[in-house]
Amino acid sequence: MSASPYKQLEQEFRRLHAFRGALSLLRWDAAVMMPRGSADVRGEQLAALETEHHALLTAPRIARLLDRAQANTQGLADWQIANLREMRRQRDHAIATPVSLISRLTRAAARAEAHWLEARRQGRFDVFAPHLAEVVQLVRDKAALLGQALNLAPYDALVDEFSPGLTTADIDAMFKALSRRLPAMIRESIAAQERRPLLPLAGKFPQAKQRALIVEIMKTVGFPFDRGRLDESEHPFTEGVPGDIRVTTRIDPDDIFSGILGALHETGHAMYDLGLPQDWRDQPVGRDRGMALEESQSLLIEMIICRSRPFVRYVQPLLMRHFGVSGPEWDVENIYAHLTRVRRGLIRVDADELTYPLHIMLRYELEKQLLSGELAVKDLPEAWNAGMEQRLGIRPPNDVEGCLQDIHWAVGSFGYFPSYALGAVIAAQLYESMRAEVPSFDEQLARGEFSGLFGWLRAHVHGIGAKVPVQDLLVGATGKPLSATFFIRYVESKYLESARTTAAA
Amino acid sequence: MSASPYKQLEQEFRRLHAFRGALSLLRWDAAVMMPRGSADVRGEQLAALETEHHALLTAPRIARLLDRAQANTQGLADWQIANLREMRRQRDHAIATPVSLISRLTRAAARAEAHWLEARRQGRFDVFAPHLAEVVQLVRDKAALLGQALNLAPYDALVDEFSPGLTTADIDAMFKALSRRLPAMIRESIAAQERRPLLPLAGKFPQAKQRALIVEIMKTVGFPFDRGRLDESEHPFTEGVPGDIRVTTRIDPDDIFSGILGALHETGHAMYDLGLPQDWRDQPVGRDRGMALEESQSLLIEMIICRSRPFVRYVQPLLMRHFGVSGPEWDVENIYAHLTRVRRGLIRVDADELTYPLHIMLRYELEKQLLSGELAVKDLPEAWNAGMEQRLGIRPPNDVEGCLQDIHWAVGSFGYFPSYALGAVIAAQLYESMRAEVPSFDEQLARGEFSGLFGWLRAHVHGIGAKVPVQDLLVGATGKPLSATFFIRYVESKYLESARTTAAA
Repeated sequence: MSASPYKQLEQEFRRLHAFRGALSLLRWDAAVMMPRGSADVRGEQLAALETEHHALLTAPRIARLLDRAQANTQGLADWQIANLREMRRQRDHAIATPVSLISRLTRAAARAEAHWLEARRQGRFDVFAPHLAEVVQLVRDKAALLGQALNLAPYDALVDEFSPGLTTADIDAMFKALSRRLPAMIRESIAAQERRPLLPLAGKFPQAKQRALIVEIMKTVGFPFDRGRLDESEHPFTEGVPGDIRVTTRIDPDDIFSGILGALHETGHAMYDLGLPQDWRDQPVGRDRGMALEESQSLLIEMIICRSRPFVRYVQPLLMRHFGVSGPEWDVENIYAHLTRVRRGLIRVDADELTYPLHIMLRYELEKQLLSGELAVKDLPEAWNAGMEQRLGIRPPNDVEGCLQDIHWAVGSFGYFPSYALGAVIAAQLYESMRAEVPSFDEQLARGEFSGLFGWLRAHVHGIGAKVPVQDLLVGATGKPLSATFFIRYVESKYLESARTTAAA
Repeated sequence: MSASPYKQLEQEFRRLHAFRGALSLLRWDAAVMMPRGSADVRGEQLAALETEHHALLTAPRIARLLDRAQANTQGLADWQIANLREMRRQRDHAIATPVSLISRLTRAAARAEAHWLEARRQGRFDVFAPHLAEVVQLVRDKAALLGQALNLAPYDALVDEFSPGLTTADIDAMFKALSRRLPAMIRESIAAQERRPLLPLAGKFPQAKQRALIVEIMKTVGFPFDRGRLDESEHPFTEGVPGDIRVTTRIDPDDIFSGILGALHETGHAMYDLGLPQDWRDQPVGRDRGMALEESQSLLIEMIICRSRPFVRYVQPLLMRHFGVSGPEWDVENIYAHLTRVRRGLIRVDADELTYPLHIMLRYELEKQLLSGELAVKDLPEAWNAGMEQRLGIRPPNDVEGCLQDIHWAVGSFGYFPSYALGAVIAAQLYESMRAEVPSFDEQLARGEFSGLFGWLRAHVHGIGAKVPVQDLLVGATGKPLSATFFIRYVESKYLESARTTAAA
C-alpha cells in the first residue's frame, strides 16, 4: 500500500525544508565568506534553487494531496492537522504570485540593492530613486495579487507573509497606544538622565578578546557551538536551520557593547529556532510562528534581558576579566545607565527601547503611503525628514542618515518593519508572564543562569512551533492576546524609575 | 516564436550548472566551516539537491529536446554541437543508474565513510570491512548497469564517468610502459641520492606566516582572490565553480613545504577551472575534460613545476623573507634535493614522482579484483600488503598505513585512482610541448612569472573545455595521443641526472 496523502505531503515538505536550508547556507556564505567578485555566480545559484523550490511547492500534485488529506483527517494528530493548515498556507502564498513576477521582483531588488549601496556612498537619493520606484511598483502588483488570493487588503497580505495572524488593525491599535504614552516618557527620561552624569566606558577592546567574551556568554546562554557558528559580518544576522544555526555580529573595537548586544540579539533568534519542536523540525508546523514572534525573541534578550541590572551584575566581572578594566565607570549602576540611555537619534538600529517604536511608526506609515501611491518615491526624503521632525524632534542632515539608512525597501521587504515594534511589544508581554512564573529569575540571571528563562520560553513559545495562530499562542503563554499594555508597563517601571529616583535625589 | 530546442537545452543546463555550484558550496562548507554536529542536516540538503539535479537531468523533456536538437544541427556552431554531445553524455550516464540505486549507494557510502574513520582510529580493518563490502556490491551493480547502457565493460564504464575517452586499454598500456622502467630508476635514484647527504630543513614555521607566503605565491601564479578563497582543511581540495573557486590546504608547522605544495596542487585545479571558456561556463561543453586532465593540471604544478630548480630559485628568497631562515641548508641545491627526494614509502599522498605510479597500480589492480569478485573484501589487507611488498619492497606494519589509508573506496569512488597516474603522464606530455613552445620558460619561472605557462595551457588545454575528446585534445596540444614516453623521458632526465652527476663526482 502506498503512503497516505498526509505522509506523502510530509515527504514533499521534508524536501522543501532541505532546499530552504541550502538556500540559507548560500545566503550566509554570501555575507560572511564569499569573495567579493562572486555575487553574480551566487545570484544564479540562489535564483535556480528558489525557482525550483517554488515549482515544487506549487506543483499540482501538492494541491491534490492537500485536498485529499484535508478531506479526511481521521487518524491524524492535532499537530498533523495544524501541519496541513501550514502546508496549505505556504502553498497558497506561493501560488498567488506568478513566478514571472517573483523573478522580476528578485532582479529589480538586486539592482535596487546595488544602487542603494551606491546612493549611500555618494549620499544621493536620486541614484536610488528610479530603482526603488520599480521595486515599489512590483511589490504593489504582488500585494494586489496576494490580497486577492488571501482575501486580505493588499498591505495586510504583505504583513501576513511575515507575521501571519497579525493585521493592520492589530498594528494600528498598538501604535495608537504607544504614541499616546511614549513621547512624554521620552521627554521625562531624557530630562532625568541628563541630571545624572554618565562616566564614559572608553577604551580599546580588541576584536579577538571581544569574540572570546561573546563566545563565553553565548555558551552560558545555551548556544550549541557543535551545531552552530558565530562569525562577523557587516550587519548581524541569523541564518541556517535548527541543527546548523549561524549567527553573526559586528565587532567594534571602540565599543564594548555593540558586538555583545548584536550577538545576543541574534542568539535570541537562534534559541527560538533551536527550541522548535524537534520531531516536526522539517515540517511547516515545526517552523517559527512568524517574524513578529522571531523579533520578540531577539528583542527580549537584547533589550529586556541584556539591559537589566541582573544581567549587568552577571556580565560586569566578565568584562573585568576579559579586558582587565576597572574603576568607577565599571560599576554596575554606571554600566546599567549606559545600557538604558534614552536619546533622540537618527538611526533606527542604534535606537533605545523608548524611541525605537517611533522609528518603526514612521516607516510603517511611509511604506503604506508608497504602496498606495499616496506618496511618490521622489517625495520620500522630504516626507521622511518631516516625519522625523514631527516624531522625534530631529531632522536628518542628509539622506544617508535619513531614508537611505535601511535596506528593507530596496530588497522589496515591505510589510516587515511592523514586526520589530510588534516584537518589542510581544517581548514585554512574555517577559511579564515569565517573571511571574519564574520568581527567582533575577537571581538566576545575576548568576548567569538562563535555564529558567529558556525553560519557560521553550514550554510556552519555542516548543509550540507554528501549531497555533500567534494570538492563540500569546493567550496560551500570557493569558491575553497581543496588547501594548505590557510594554508600556515595562518601560514605565524601567525608565520612569530613574526619573523618579533622580527627582527624589 | 519559442526558443529552439538547442536554446531550451542551454537554459536547462544553465540551471543544472547552478545546482552543481550550490552542491559544491555545500560540500566546501561541510569540510571547512560546518559545525561538527551538523552532518545529518547537511546530508539531507545534499541528498535533496542531488536527487532534484538527477530528476531535472533525466526528465523526459531533456531527452525529447536532445533528440530534436541533434536531428537538426543546422545553424549551430561547432562548440554547440559538441555541447549537445556532452549534454547527452551527462544525461545517458545519469539515466543509466536508477535513483534508488544511487541513493542506496549514497547512504551506504556515508555509513562506510564513518566506519572507515572509526576503523582508522581503532586500527581495525574488520570495523570497516562489512560496510566496504556493501559499497562494493552496490558499485558492482552500478557498473553493470552503466556498462550495459554505455556499451562498455563494467570497469570501463566507471572510468568513463571520471575520465571520459580513456579506457582500461589506455591505462594498461601506460602501466605496462611505466612498470618496465620505474623499478630500476627508483633503485638507481635512491642509491645516487643516498651518496649525497641532505641538510635537514628543520624549524618551526608558524601557520599564519605559511599562509601569508602561500597567498603571495598563489597571487603570483594568478589565483584571483576576488573570486576565490584559500582555507585550511584536513585534506587539501578544490570546490566551487569558475567565478567562485575555493581551494584548501593543510598547514603543518613542522614542514615548510607540505602546505605550499598542497595549496599549489589545488591551485593547478583552480587555474584549469578558471581558464575554461568563459562564454560556455555554465554549459557541459565548458566543463573540464575529466579527472585525468584535472589531475594533470594539479600534478604539473605540484610535481613538475614546484619541484624544479627554476621554481626553487623563485621561492628561496621568499622563504628567507617570510621565515627569516638562512644557512647552507637553504641553498637552492639543497632545497631542490629535498623536493626531488625518492623514497619507498607506505603512503600514497606522501609519495614522490617515481614511486607514485606504483601506488596507483596497486590500487588499480585491487579495485578491479574487488569489483570482479576475484578478491573478497576480507582478503584485501593481505592482498594490499603483498602488493606493496612486491612493488615497493616494503610491508605496511598495520592497515592504517595500508589499505585503510585512502577514503576513495569507502565513498564508492572506484575507477578514480587511475586518473592520478594518467594525470602524471599527461602532465609530462604537456610539459614537454609547453617548454618547446615557451623557450624562455625556465627564466620566467625563476623570476616568478607564470604567464608563459598559463598562456600556453589556456590556449591548448583550459580554453578547449570539453569541446573535443581527451585524446584529440592531447593531439592538438602535443601532436601525440596519450603516451607514457614523455613521462619516462621527463623523470629520466630529472632523476638519472642526479644519479649520473653523483657517479661522476
